[in-house]
Amino acid sequence: MSQIRGRFEKDADERAESYTASIQYDWRLYPYDIAGSIAHARMLGRQGIITEQEAETIIGGLNAVREEIEQGSFEFRPELEDIHMNIEARLIEKVGEVGGKLHTARSRNDQVALDMRLFARDAILRAVEALRRLQKALVDVAGANKGVVMPGYTHLQRAQPVLLAHHLLAYFEMLERDIGRFKCSRKRTDILPLGSGALAGVAYQIDRESVAKELGFDQVSRNSIDAVSDRDFLLEYGSAASICMMHLSRLAEEVVLWSSAEFDFVEVDDAYATGSSIMPQKKNPDVAELARGKTGRAYGNLMSLLTMMKGLPLAYDRDMQEDKEAFFDTVDTLLATLDVCAGMVSTLRVKPESTARAVRQGHLLATDLADYLVKKGEPFRSAHDAVARLVARAAREGKALDGLKLSEYREFSPRFGEDVFSISVESSLAARDHVGGTAPKRVEQALAEAKKRLANR
Amino acid sequence: MSQIRGRFEKDADERAESYTASIQYDWRLYPYDIAGSIAHARMLGRQGIITEQEAETIIGGLNAVREEIEQGSFEFRPELEDIHMNIEARLIEKVGEVGGKLHTARSRNDQVALDMRLFARDAILRAVEALRRLQKALVDVAGANKGVVMPGYTHLQRAQPVLLAHHLLAYFEMLERDIGRFKCSRKRTDILPLGSGALAGVAYQIDRESVAKELGFDQVSRNSIDAVSDRDFLLEYGSAASICMMHLSRLAEEVVLWSSAEFDFVEVDDAYATGSSIMPQKKNPDVAELARGKTGRAYGNLMSLLTMMKGLPLAYDRDMQEDKEAFFDTVDTLLATLDVCAGMVSTLRVKPESTARAVRQGHLLATDLADYLVKKGEPFRSAHDAVARLVARAAREGKALDGLKLSEYREFSPRFGEDVFSISVESSLAARDHVGGTAPKRVEQALAEAKKRLANR
Amino acid sequence: MSQIRGRFEKDADERAESYTASIQYDWRLYPYDIAGSIAHARMLGRQGIITEQEAETIIGGLNAVREEIEQGSFEFRPELEDIHMNIEARLIEKVGEVGGKLHTARSRNDQVALDMRLFARDAILRAVEALRRLQKALVDVAGANKGVVMPGYTHLQRAQPVLLAHHLLAYFEMLERDIGRFKCSRKRTDILPLGSGALAGVAYQIDRESVAKELGFDQVSRNSIDAVSDRDFLLEYGSAASICMMHLSRLAEEVVLWSSAEFDFVEVDDAYATGSSIMPQKKNPDVAELARGKTGRAYGNLMSLLTMMKGLPLAYDRDMQEDKEAFFDTVDTLLATLDVCAGMVSTLRVKPESTARAVRQGHLLATDLADYLVKKGEPFRSAHDAVARLVARAAREGKALDGLKLSEYREFSPRFGEDVFSISVESSLAARDHVGGTAPKRVEQALAEAKKRLANR
Amino acid sequence: MSQIRGRFEKDADERAESYTASIQYDWRLYPYDIAGSIAHARMLGRQGIITEQEAETIIGGLNAVREEIEQGSFEFRPELEDIHMNIEARLIEKVGEVGGKLHTARSRNDQVALDMRLFARDAILRAVEALRRLQKALVDVAGANKGVVMPGYTHLQRAQPVLLAHHLLAYFEMLERDIGRFKCSRKRTDILPLGSGALAGVAYQIDRESVAKELGFDQVSRNSIDAVSDRDFLLEYGSAASICMMHLSRLAEEVVLWSSAEFDFVEVDDAYATGSSIMPQKKNPDVAELARGKTGRAYGNLMSLLTMMKGLPLAYDRDMQEDKEAFFDTVDTLLATLDVCAGMVSTLRVKPESTARAVRQGHLLATDLADYLVKKGEPFRSAHDAVARLVARAAREGKALDGLKLSEYREFSPRFGEDVFSISVESSLAARDHVGGTAPKRVEQALAEAKKRLANR
Repeated sequence: MSQIRGRFEKDADERAESYTASIQYDWRLYPYDIAGSIAHARMLGRQGIITEQEAETIIGGLNAVREEIEQGSFEFRPELEDIHMNIEARLIEKVGEVGGKLHTARSRNDQVALDMRLFARDAILRAVEALRRLQKALVDVAGANKGVVMPGYTHLQRAQPVLLAHHLLAYFEMLERDIGRFKCSRKRTDILPLGSGALAGVAYQIDRESVAKELGFDQVSRNSIDAVSDRDFLLEYGSAASICMMHLSRLAEEVVLWSSAEFDFVEVDDAYATGSSIMPQKKNPDVAELARGKTGRAYGNLMSLLTMMKGLPLAYDRDMQEDKEAFFDTVDTLLATLDVCAGMVSTLRVKPESTARAVRQGHLLATDLADYLVKKGEPFRSAHDAVARLVARAAREGKALDGLKLSEYREFSPRFGEDVFSISVESSLAARDHVGGTAPKRVEQALAEAKKRLANR
Repeated sequence: MSQIRGRFEKDADERAESYTASIQYDWRLYPYDIAGSIAHARMLGRQGIITEQEAETIIGGLNAVREEIEQGSFEFRPELEDIHMNIEARLIEKVGEVGGKLHTARSRNDQVALDMRLFARDAILRAVEALRRLQKALVDVAGANKGVVMPGYTHLQRAQPVLLAHHLLAYFEMLERDIGRFKCSRKRTDILPLGSGALAGVAYQIDRESVAKELGFDQVSRNSIDAVSDRDFLLEYGSAASICMMHLSRLAEEVVLWSSAEFDFVEVDDAYATGSSIMPQKKNPDVAELARGKTGRAYGNLMSLLTMMKGLPLAYDRDMQEDKEAFFDTVDTLLATLDVCAGMVSTLRVKPESTARAVRQGHLLATDLADYLVKKGEPFRSAHDAVARLVARAAREGKALDGLKLSEYREFSPRFGEDVFSISVESSLAARDHVGGTAPKRVEQALAEAKKRLANR
Repeated sequence: MSQIRGRFEKDADERAESYTASIQYDWRLYPYDIAGSIAHARMLGRQGIITEQEAETIIGGLNAVREEIEQGSFEFRPELEDIHMNIEARLIEKVGEVGGKLHTARSRNDQVALDMRLFARDAILRAVEALRRLQKALVDVAGANKGVVMPGYTHLQRAQPVLLAHHLLAYFEMLERDIGRFKCSRKRTDILPLGSGALAGVAYQIDRESVAKELGFDQVSRNSIDAVSDRDFLLEYGSAASICMMHLSRLAEEVVLWSSAEFDFVEVDDAYATGSSIMPQKKNPDVAELARGKTGRAYGNLMSLLTMMKGLPLAYDRDMQEDKEAFFDTVDTLLATLDVCAGMVSTLRVKPESTARAVRQGHLLATDLADYLVKKGEPFRSAHDAVARLVARAAREGKALDGLKLSEYREFSPRFGEDVFSISVESSLAARDHVGGTAPKRVEQALAEAKKRLANR
Repeated sequence: MSQIRGRFEKDADERAESYTASIQYDWRLYPYDIAGSIAHARMLGRQGIITEQEAETIIGGLNAVREEIEQGSFEFRPELEDIHMNIEARLIEKVGEVGGKLHTARSRNDQVALDMRLFARDAILRAVEALRRLQKALVDVAGANKGVVMPGYTHLQRAQPVLLAHHLLAYFEMLERDIGRFKCSRKRTDILPLGSGALAGVAYQIDRESVAKELGFDQVSRNSIDAVSDRDFLLEYGSAASICMMHLSRLAEEVVLWSSAEFDFVEVDDAYATGSSIMPQKKNPDVAELARGKTGRAYGNLMSLLTMMKGLPLAYDRDMQEDKEAFFDTVDTLLATLDVCAGMVSTLRVKPESTARAVRQGHLLATDLADYLVKKGEPFRSAHDAVARLVARAAREGKALDGLKLSEYREFSPRFGEDVFSISVESSLAARDHVGGTAPKRVEQALAEAKKRLANR
């Protein structure tokens, strides 16, 4: 803070200083800050705004500062407020007055926007990679359990038989969309803001395209006021992360359900479970529960950033310093959750007898019975109605549908014939034979296609 | 509800019926529901699942139902719960038992997913169009006020002179990103879910690609369980809309500020202002205030949908019926806000004398003075420091910077020479001469480019 | 709008008019608006600000307007913007120019604050009543199933035996806190804002205390600027409602779980369930699912209002008109959800054999075994450890704990003796014999106490 | 984690361990955890569950552990997962096996609930104290500027003259409600959960009331399942903090506006402002901006916790570990923001000439003119209309209202007489002479009352 208090007569209040400082969390930006400064210095030299020699000195100094940070010998000083000032101050200590030339033709406003974009660009890449790893875990478990049948649910009521692999591939699709969203957001992230100055641009003959090229940016920003005011890319990441965490919360919910004594469809590996401080018999799916609980974190961070940006006049306002912690936390939460979920999924032990047993109870073939009648010429609505009454009768008598006699079937519709007894879990699955259906051969194709997409970064 | 209570012995509780009914808001889906049903019926006929003749009868009936709705003679019945059942029941009344065949090879789960996707696809298009209209209004006002100079602000403190056109084009860029987001989201919206049945697919030889083609979809969904469980497209719209409303809240904030007596930069047209019930002199920028206030609505709806989806086990759960009102409200809010903002912006009366007066107060050329010293060889940091002390002196004496004498300048740095007096608002603007800068010729180019992009739907 | 456009030369833009109008939702305020106006008019007459005769005429007119609204003959006119202007305009039509005196010594700013407080005060009362009804349903079901034992869960894993009644009374406690919150919020709601005028107070010798008394308010507001700017009472209701909906979402989740085939602890009454459009066997707990889903609505509305209020300068800003729909929706959602939940709970059919069966599986008495060892002198930590290993052994061998022989027990601790076999579900329950514990006699006391609290409004 | 993995064959996955660990943030609970453990141990000894000697040993050990932590010599071990296990493990190291008896008759579930309640109870007290300090700052500035007149605003348009003290006291009222909310929430926070065990109570003859007394709790919890599942008290704090931060965001917005060149009503003290990295003339109200921006943090944390709790089945789920960071962050944010706001407010330099100048422009006495006509017998509506036209005329001619001649007044109403010229800012203020009005004597009373309330903790 001290460095930019030139016109002030008083020092900052201590509490105000600590309130406004960001070094305790923005130190993480250091590799991006230094990379950006090096590209900037090189351009200043190339353009003759500083001499090539000065540029070299500055770049050498910045590399030395980075090394200090990486070796842990750098001392972060809160009174210097943020990572930018910490690095610049140390640079000047190291290379002398010439270090003060680095900030020529830029402002902290475009500098911090640059750092955040570089960080966000990396965070997008890492999210895509982590998503692919979880997709792979799903594909592996699906592939290893191709023949496993389980009840498909709606309203948490058993509905129709499906393949476990089909169910798991539903999550593959969700994650595929997540990847799509992160990739889309990259278009609006991968833009160089440097050169926007405080808000109006800078009064030097800068070469923004060369800086963009050096830092690997697709484009340069087109309006300086917008460039220092824009945090859309953080909100977009936050939205994509929230939707992704929502998907993970559904997967987590199912792992919790499936590993309950009541479902007993899977066992979570010991490495992803914990015990109880008091109940010796417990094995709790903590990782799944925490993944579900951390969903709130992503939502909350998104809301935090949306609220912060609401109604801010252009261009930069200090409120926007609050973009960092929420964003960092979302990135950390998302990546950690994807990783532990991949580990948890890939080590799940599936219990096929248990899922098969569940398929046999609950009249899961009722839809197939209605379809049977339809194929015999009954309109769907009345077929549905007849079978509904048939099921009610079976339920009252505590019988399975295949425990009824043909004569009993025929009380509900004369269209029932002997072939009604050929309806089975297998016939039910096989009949759903179209793109997206749970027929085994379709699921086999879907698995093959999923494996191909895994290769696609 | 009555139609699907075949196995139940009791009627629904009246309050439960009203609690679960959705017809009061989902009637809006009728054009999509009917279009989807027509494409479905045609496919059923083509595939021989029903006869071509039956298909024709059903399609004729559906067209007649649509006409009834459009003419206002259709009676919506809450006891039929939702728009799907209302239409089907009326269809059966009109064409008889054959109407009951329409629901063959589909479920309400894939049907409602279809309707919502068709609605969302339209909503995306309409958002893009409305965004373009607001962009055009901004370009028009910018173009009509090319020479107007105003203070650029950071921290709501006057910072550096900018062109009003440059400032307005910052909003153009924000809206351009909004358009990009809506367009991106279309990729994940424009997917046919029909054929997914309740969750497992359907037991008929359906032809999903032909239905997709008839309804103009890019793709068919790849996993039936995912297809009935997926509401990502609504969340993605909700995120894009929230970010867009955030932009509009910033624009609105500035209109409110600028039309205050204190700023007095613009006057809102009477058509977009209101008076007071008690203070006869008031002219309030209500439209801008409401646009700002309605931001909360988009955020709240997004949070509502994210919360609703959290932790739901696959596949469809009834919670998901809650997707509609929040989504519809976001769509309505966004489109209405974009439209009134376009009207309000295009009728803004700019007060150039007022903005020019503001530029002259507040030492807005201090950065240019520091840059002046830098160009004379002073490192930026010490130049900044010297000018900061110079400004403090001027402020203490109540003088403008150009009211100081050269000798006074030189007290702070010997590098100051006569040419310091050639620094002016015009020179300051002109110096920011790079892509994204506020130099008049750059803003002219940006305006031209913006006009080109307007043509791009 | 037209009435207060005295100084404007132009009509409002049509879209702006519809954007700013609130009559489509604020018509619900009419009984409060009229009651407030009557109290205001009476006070104006009493204070001689208008004549007693004028006051009588106005009051008569207002009563007539109310009747028109209640009989459905009142025509709401959107061009009059809101309920206040609609009523005033009709009043003037009915009683002539004297109707124009009603608005003396008040402003729409304090008028709408009054209406909202009256509405909110009622909403608090209705919430408390509805909460009591749901509490009663819980107490009834608990009382009717006093002996029913079920597994208590942590992490959705069976943990220890508890009484169903004890479990249900946990919800009673949550709702009791909800009631406490609503009652607390009343203190800050039950305050008369009228007399604050637009923001500064009014220039008449008004008698605020008498108006407060007539309208049943506890206090008058102490600062006019605050009184027209304050929407805390809506946020506080929204917070209390969000927490309450969270409780209901937990109850709903459990009803969904318990009525699954896997748990099978309860059956939801037909009156609170629905069927499937395609699967004839389904019976879905839709009411519970919707209650869970509507939680997002309360959260979203709260976020909407918090966002709207953020950063608004004093005093009234038009953004605040957005307070109504979100608040009304929260009130409607909360009351409807409480009501259907009461109906659903009170008609739940509990399946005691099913819950008892679940208690017998899963080593639920392991904690009691550890406590047994502790009571024999083993420190808790090592007792816990010994029993954990014992359970692992039983699990590996597929045995229940009481299926092991004493010699087997003693392999894990020499402290085990014959009396270990007296540990039973009954002994486990009975041992938790302290305030808050699940011992049957404690639960009996808790039920009795709960019944007493039900009487407390 | 290791300590409670008795029945597991495998170690936790390293990433899972780090994902589930909480020691990095829950170490802050140590004073509460130790105080709770001491009270628990003492009770165990008193009840003979352990010997008095054992209790003494444990208590001594716990005190020694606390000292280690406070002196910084305690080594927190992530593999022990949380603060409870860290302390217990160290205790056992220090006092031997007897330390393992501490966890008798309790579970981590009731232990962590206890710690959080103790923390929250302190946080409530600290919030109330910090609120009082900010109230005092407001009262001080109001008292020191009793005579200062400023424009009251609605819609950010100048509306009517008010006293600055009156305006500042509006914030006093908001904070008073905040205090009320925090105090109310204490009722539902100040409840002892210990004795609830994992969820069902504990199988020992415990004495909960004595523990409650020792720890200063008002009540003991009434239902063990509820007690370990309840996080209402955190949500309630989060709601109160969100509303309070909303108030502070409004205050912050006004400080930002008022310290702009355009308003120029106040100057923020150097100690609460910062400069610019590039613009030497800048003095930015960063503390106010950050306070406004941090509002999003409180909202986001609230949303995070509400989301996390949604739909969780009873009793404890691991999701609930996520209660801590969001809550701690809200507490820290709130307290820091209140403190810097108190500092910033108490050092504000008010510019009375500037506010007075603003009052003279903008026809702020128009309402008084309308009231004048009303008092002469004109109904309010037509008086309002006449003055509105009068103002429009003055505005067109660029005149102030008191710059018009009587004959000009009379063009709009014959009721205008010479005494119209006695309407002044002073008369306008003085006329608002009722409870809550801005009349100087009323504001004087309000100030006196506010000072009294300051003493009320």
